[in-house]
Amino acid sequence: MKQYNVAVVGATGMVGNKFLQVLTEKQLPVKNYYLYASAKSAGKVINFMGKDHTVIELTEANVVDKEIDFALFSAGGSTSKEFAPIFARQGAIVIDNSSQWRMDPTVPLVVPEVNPEAIKNHHNIIANPNCSTIQAVVALKPLHDKYGIKRVVYSTYQAVSGAGVAGYNDLVNQAKEGETKKFPYPIFGNCIPHIDVFLPNGYTKEEEKMINETKKILNDYTIKVTATTVRVPVRYGHSESINIEFNKPCTLEGVRECLSSQKGLILVDDYQNNKYPMPLYAEDHDEVYVGRVRIDDTVESGVNIWVVADNIRKGAATNAVQILEYMIKEDNK
Amino acid sequence: MKQYNVAVVGATGMVGNKFLQVLTEKQLPVKNYYLYASAKSAGKVINFMGKDHTVIELTEANVVDKEIDFALFSAGGSTSKEFAPIFARQGAIVIDNSSQWRMDPTVPLVVPEVNPEAIKNHHNIIANPNCSTIQAVVALKPLHDKYGIKRVVYSTYQAVSGAGVAGYNDLVNQAKEGETKKFPYPIFGNCIPHIDVFLPNGYTKEEEKMINETKKILNDYTIKVTATTVRVPVRYGHSESINIEFNKPCTLEGVRECLSSQKGLILVDDYQNNKYPMPLYAEDHDEVYVGRVRIDDTVESGVNIWVVADNIRKGAATNAVQILEYMIKEDNK
Repeated sequence: MKQYNVAVVGATGMVGNKFLQVLTEKQLPVKNYYLYASAKSAGKVINFMGKDHTVIELTEANVVDKEIDFALFSAGGSTSKEFAPIFARQGAIVIDNSSQWRMDPTVPLVVPEVNPEAIKNHHNIIANPNCSTIQAVVALKPLHDKYGIKRVVYSTYQAVSGAGVAGYNDLVNQAKEGETKKFPYPIFGNCIPHIDVFLPNGYTKEEEKMINETKKILNDYTIKVTATTVRVPVRYGHSESINIEFNKPCTLEGVRECLSSQKGLILVDDYQNNKYPMPLYAEDHDEVYVGRVRIDDTVESGVNIWVVADNIRKGAATNAVQILEYMIKEDNK
Repeated sequence: MKQYNVAVVGATGMVGNKFLQVLTEKQLPVKNYYLYASAKSAGKVINFMGKDHTVIELTEANVVDKEIDFALFSAGGSTSKEFAPIFARQGAIVIDNSSQWRMDPTVPLVVPEVNPEAIKNHHNIIANPNCSTIQAVVALKPLHDKYGIKRVVYSTYQAVSGAGVAGYNDLVNQAKEGETKKFPYPIFGNCIPHIDVFLPNGYTKEEEKMINETKKILNDYTIKVTATTVRVPVRYGHSESINIEFNKPCTLEGVRECLSSQKGLILVDDYQNNKYPMPLYAEDHDEVYVGRVRIDDTVESGVNIWVVADNIRKGAATNAVQILEYMIKEDNK
């Protein structure tokens, strides 16, 4: 099997750390790993895959002197804007976790279980969707194929780790009566209906991402999507209450069967035994969990579902590594 | 002004305690307060309104020997089922916080800012709605009057105090790594999409309450309502993401104006300055807070709103005491 050189950009951040963990588990055919971070973290030594790696400062000079096949980015939008094209021009395929390229019509936005076919149209940059969107579309995809989704109403319950190490620390410190640094208000014992910045229409950018990215990934702009996104005092794992209206008639059994058949999705829905997905139990798992499946009889055909996944795994690192894995497999066909 | 005798049934519970606090603040024209609880708490002395009150065991004999005008009940459904009729037969007007009588067609289900006119049809029992429903309808009422509500999708973020002292203790103890006693799973750092018992259609009784009580309070059974109710690690204050579809066209300004004019409702909606309702700041306030008002353009006419209130105050004790206050005022007209 062919061997590849893989760069991890933003290797010392929360998602970067998880990239290294997921890559260790996957054991892909990689010759060299290059770990990049900002000047602040450069020089730090990270033991990874049984080998010491010195973190490389992310500069153009430190990129163009290497042969890189794939670069996993999780270093924020402005770093992606500047450096993804540098890697791409060198021939590397960038799998980017920021929101920078997601809505660019020339950039595929990919969840491998949902729209792997989009990958082939890439121009060396592939976007990893927003964490909340990834887990939602894994559940929506089979339903859309079977019943045709007309409208979606999202309400999210998002973990603090979605705001990175600083967000995570806010919750952990406040549990010990420490101060708030990352969030605008204390998150311990609170719900903050504000994720990312506000837009002129009063929606947040997080809500806009869910609305736009859902349509792009499902490749259907006739689907109507609205969203309310909320930060809750949970460490890892986003939860979502999703109300879905279909074009075609559905039955509870049909919906459950359809969800059961989706790759990467686990149906946990046995209310007689108090079984339903919860973030505490999704932590450090790669799968998306769906449950609380109920017919919504307030529309001609519709359901309510509850979707949970580890936002740092499937919502970020795992999904990007799965894209990498898919491309390596295709390359070796 | 006429003076009344008021009983508080379940005086030592979480809502019972709040009854006493709210009654102290309101200073109603009350001659005698009788505090009732189960045998376990009977004999306990509670200092209330500057006077020591010995808690009376709730037995029929201890009710029929007194002249009671009003009885505020918060002692669970089975106690209400047994004792509300005993008080009512003696001529007392029972204001009951349990779900026992709410859907009885002969029992008014009342939020004083929303449907005070329903009170006059009582037969000595008046029901206080479910906590999540109370705060929702305070926001829905003016919108229904102005635009006609066609459909509502509720997703809730409910505080542990909604499950009483034991629920509150679960969160507080788990923050110190203690064990779970009340909830089926740990609530600290988790979201549990399960409140009250499950029904055969997969909805919970809490969801069913929100669906049925919304229609009864707004006195319009053409409104379509669906709900997903979730427990979150918040001590006091329920939050709700509410998606609403109207029959008539609306504008953002019109909706905001309409919400601003509602009694008991405070519009906190200034996203430029990060102002929106949050449970941490609703704690121990009597008002309902609404914000994150956004036009939902996925329907012909609709909005998304975010509604927060202290579930033990407006969601329980305050609402019941407001019903009492209203009746005293009417009686003295």
